[in-house]
Amino acid sequence: MSGHLAVIGLGPGDVRHLTPEADEALKDTDNREERARAAAALHDAVQGTRVAIVSGGDPGVFAMAAAVCEEIEHGPEIFRALDVTIVPGVTAMLAVAARIGAPLGHDFCALSLSDNLKPWPLIERRLDAAAGAGFVIALYNPVSQSRPWQFARAMERLAGVLPPATPVVVGRAVGRADEQVTVTTLDRASSAAADMATLVIVGSRETRLVPRAGRTPLVYTPRSAAVVSA
Amino acid sequence: MSGHLAVIGLGPGDVRHLTPEADEALKDTDNREERARAAAALHDAVQGTRVAIVSGGDPGVFAMAAAVCEEIEHGPEIFRALDVTIVPGVTAMLAVAARIGAPLGHDFCALSLSDNLKPWPLIERRLDAAAGAGFVIALYNPVSQSRPWQFARAMERLAGVLPPATPVVVGRAVGRADEQVTVTTLDRASSAAADMATLVIVGSRETRLVPRAGRTPLVYTPRSAAVVSA
Repeated sequence: MSGHLAVIGLGPGDVRHLTPEADEALKDTDNREERARAAAALHDAVQGTRVAIVSGGDPGVFAMAAAVCEEIEHGPEIFRALDVTIVPGVTAMLAVAARIGAPLGHDFCALSLSDNLKPWPLIERRLDAAAGAGFVIALYNPVSQSRPWQFARAMERLAGVLPPATPVVVGRAVGRADEQVTVTTLDRASSAAADMATLVIVGSRETRLVPRAGRTPLVYTPRSAAVVSA
Repeated sequence: MSGHLAVIGLGPGDVRHLTPEADEALKDTDNREERARAAAALHDAVQGTRVAIVSGGDPGVFAMAAAVCEEIEHGPEIFRALDVTIVPGVTAMLAVAARIGAPLGHDFCALSLSDNLKPWPLIERRLDAAAGAGFVIALYNPVSQSRPWQFARAMERLAGVLPPATPVVVGRAVGRADEQVTVTTLDRASSAAADMATLVIVGSRETRLVPRAGRTPLVYTPRSAAVVSA
């Protein structure tokens, strides 16, 4: 078996070489076509060729690596004999966090708001659990063409658990020419422009906003937490 | 103000150039000396020099970036006028996940078991909340010289929520010559060798283990979750 499949994360840096059009085209598949891409790549690898699947960010976080593993488990036995290499990358939440300070400096969760792969009530349950236990929350896939309402609904849900002034970081296209990172608060966040390339970080009760004259404020979560939150 | 401070993540790759001795020395500060390192770097930057703080992994995840932000908030006003650049890196959980499949392919949390920065009951509350809501859990700082018991205690706690056969990935020194990534189950995990350079990933109820003849099994969490777990 000489076939080999590499699943490679480009991180945010290389994404600056993607045109906005190409990026939209990739995002527009809305997680529905990942299994088909994975199966096609595995079938090619089985033929003995070396195949690479590339994606922005980290392939292991809401991306192609899980789709490839699903195909290996459920596809023909020969898939299990392939050499598979997964190369990690800097995922979006780390890139956005670095631009604004250290919002992920304490315990945090990463949650996809895409409900074509899980029911919305499960997403709400996870939002409640994570916010209630004091985790900072990084939201992937906050909206898409087929589900424009998810982001506002999630902010509303979190407002039931967290104070209105909780810092929220909205990052878009980090590392690209049209990069935009803005800081807002939970009570205003739902009106922030979010699209398929947006990553949102919602602070915990501990997350701090540090104003700086003439500069973007820093947003960070202290490494220590003294109290067991309610 | 010409001073500049860069906080740079080396990712897992460059860590292979760290000797085990240097690595132990850095880890041994046990999160207690980060504020002092940050303050020293900021004071140097205020003098007009360009200063860099480097660390393995990502500086924004349980590392130096939050300590620097803490110093900027609580230190002299002049710290807020400095140029601060944070360069993200591949954090340990992404590196370990890539070696074994895609355990972080669905919603997940990152949690530090170090209790010198937060009380142990808060850690237990977060373990319960995360596991109960179906998040995969990445554990940083599972043990240290001053707290060798944390890892086993956490496994015990999670066993109250998750099935005994839940896959657990124990990764050590990924990207270094002495790299070791092993797969076990929740009921056996506490006997796994864990040290200060270990990163542990505890699966959710959905996490799958795919045996492969003559190869390490794949561990992955499917992108979809059909049920609202209990």
